[in-house]
Amino acid sequence: MLIARVIGEMVSTEKHPSHVGRKALVVQPLDLDGGNRGDPVIAFDAVDAGVGDQVLLVTEGFSAMTSVQRPESPIDMAVVGVIDRIDLDALAQTPAAHRK
Amino acid sequence: MLIARVIGEMVSTEKHPSHVGRKALVVQPLDLDGGNRGDPVIAFDAVDAGVGDQVLLVTEGFSAMTSVQRPESPIDMAVVGVIDRIDLDALAQTPAAHRK
Amino acid sequence: MLIARVIGEMVSTEKHPSHVGRKALVVQPLDLDGGNRGDPVIAFDAVDAGVGDQVLLVTEGFSAMTSVQRPESPIDMAVVGVIDRIDLDALAQTPAAHRK
Amino acid sequence: MLIARVIGEMVSTEKHPSHVGRKALVVQPLDLDGGNRGDPVIAFDAVDAGVGDQVLLVTEGFSAMTSVQRPESPIDMAVVGVIDRIDLDALAQTPAAHRK
Amino acid sequence: MLIARVIGEMVSTEKHPSHVGRKALVVQPLDLDGGNRGDPVIAFDAVDAGVGDQVLLVTEGFSAMTSVQRPESPIDMAVVGVIDRIDLDALAQTPAAHRK
Repeated sequence: MLIARVIGEMVSTEKHPSHVGRKALVVQPLDLDGGNRGDPVIAFDAVDAGVGDQVLLVTEGFSAMTSVQRPESPIDMAVVGVIDRIDLDALAQTPAAHRK
Repeated sequence: MLIARVIGEMVSTEKHPSHVGRKALVVQPLDLDGGNRGDPVIAFDAVDAGVGDQVLLVTEGFSAMTSVQRPESPIDMAVVGVIDRIDLDALAQTPAAHRK
Repeated sequence: MLIARVIGEMVSTEKHPSHVGRKALVVQPLDLDGGNRGDPVIAFDAVDAGVGDQVLLVTEGFSAMTSVQRPESPIDMAVVGVIDRIDLDALAQTPAAHRK
Repeated sequence: MLIARVIGEMVSTEKHPSHVGRKALVVQPLDLDGGNRGDPVIAFDAVDAGVGDQVLLVTEGFSAMTSVQRPESPIDMAVVGVIDRIDLDALAQTPAAHRK
Repeated sequence: MLIARVIGEMVSTEKHPSHVGRKALVVQPLDLDGGNRGDPVIAFDAVDAGVGDQVLLVTEGFSAMTSVQRPESPIDMAVVGVIDRIDLDALAQTPAAHRK
C-alpha cells in the first residue's frame, strides 16, 4: 500500500453501472517526507475520506474491489484508511550491509 | 485508475475468440494538466467511448475482464468511464510534511 | 495491452509440466512509431503468431492464463492477437488541458 | 518478492473493518548491498516482524491477502518472512552472454 | 515472463508456514545480451534450478502460486523453467514503422 493525499474528485456521468454512487477521488501518492511520489491517480473511496486527508491507498485490482464490496466491479485502486501518523525509527532507516 | 484520452483504434483479424466484436481503443494516459503520461496502450471499451474522449482507464486484468463481462477473456486494460470533469483543491495539492 | 513485435523463440527442456507443447515467444514491446519500448519479454502464444508479426500482448497473469486455456499454469504474459493496423486521430493526440 | 527493512509503523483509526488489529509496517525495499531500492511502502505483518528486521516482502494483492488469512481484505503488500542471510555466488553474478 | 539468472539463495527461519521446505532463490533479471536488467529479486523454485542457471521467471502472484501448487501461499515470483537457448531473428529486431 502507498501513503497518499486526497487532492480532488472526479465527476463522470457516462460510466460503468457498478460505479454509480461511488465517490472517485483524485489522490497524490506521497513519500515519507510528504513530497509527491509520481503522478496522481483515481481511486474509489472505501472509508469516507475527504480532500486534504492523508490516506492509505491500495493499487491492485482484487484488493480494491473487495474494499468496496463489489468483487465484480472494474476498480483497481481504492482508499482504505485515513492515516493518523507514521512512527519512524531513525536508526532503522540508516542503510547497512545486510549480509552477515 | 488513470485518466486517459482515446486517440485511435486497433484493427486485428487474427485474434482470440473472446475478442471478436470488441472495440480495441488506443488510449494515451494523461497527467492532471492534460499532458501525456508515458506511452499509449491498447484497452477494450466498456462504455462506448470515442476518439477524443477523456476517459477512466483500469490497468489490471481482473477488473478489466469484469468490466466487459468476460471473466475468461485475455484483457488487462479497459475504458470504464467518460470523464466530465476533475475538481481539484489547490490547497491540498501543496506538499507538506505529513508526520505530526 | 501493449503493441509488440515477435523477435524470436525461447527453447527450454527442463520446465513446468503445464508448459510442455507451448510456444514461448520473445516479444519486443513497441511504441506507436514502431520503436522499441523497454526490453523484450517472454510470452506464450495464443494465436499462432510468428517471428516478425506485430501482435497484441497481455502482461498480466490471470488474463494470460485464460488466453491459453490453462488457468492453473504459471504464465504471466501472452500474445493474444495479430495486429492488422492502428488508426490514429491526429487531432486527439494533441495534448490539451482536460479540466473545464 | 523483495528484500526490505522494517523502518516504522503506521497508525490509523479510521480504517477498513478488516484492518482492525493488524500491524501496518513501514518497510524500505533494499538492494543486495543493503542500500535503499525505491521509496518505502506500507505492508501488513504476517510473521511478527519488528522495526530493524530484514524481511521478505510480497507486493501483490492476492498473495498478500492469503498471507494474513483474510482473502476478502484490501491488502496488497505483506511481510512474509524474516531473513537470516543471503548466500550469493560471486561467479554467477558476473554478466555473460546467455545465448549459445 | 522474464529471463533471469540464479545468483544465490535466501535463508530464513522465521517465515510463513507455507514457505517451509521451499527453496528461495536470489535471481537477477537479464536483458537479451545477458546484462543485468534492474535489481535482483527473491523467487521460489518450481523446477529445481540451481545457482548459475539461466531461468524463466514469472513475476505475478497467481501464476507464481500455482507453479508451486500452493494457491493459498504468499508467493509472487517463481522460477518456472531452465532456459536452453534463445533463438532471435535479426531482421525482426530492426525497428520499423508498424502502421500501414
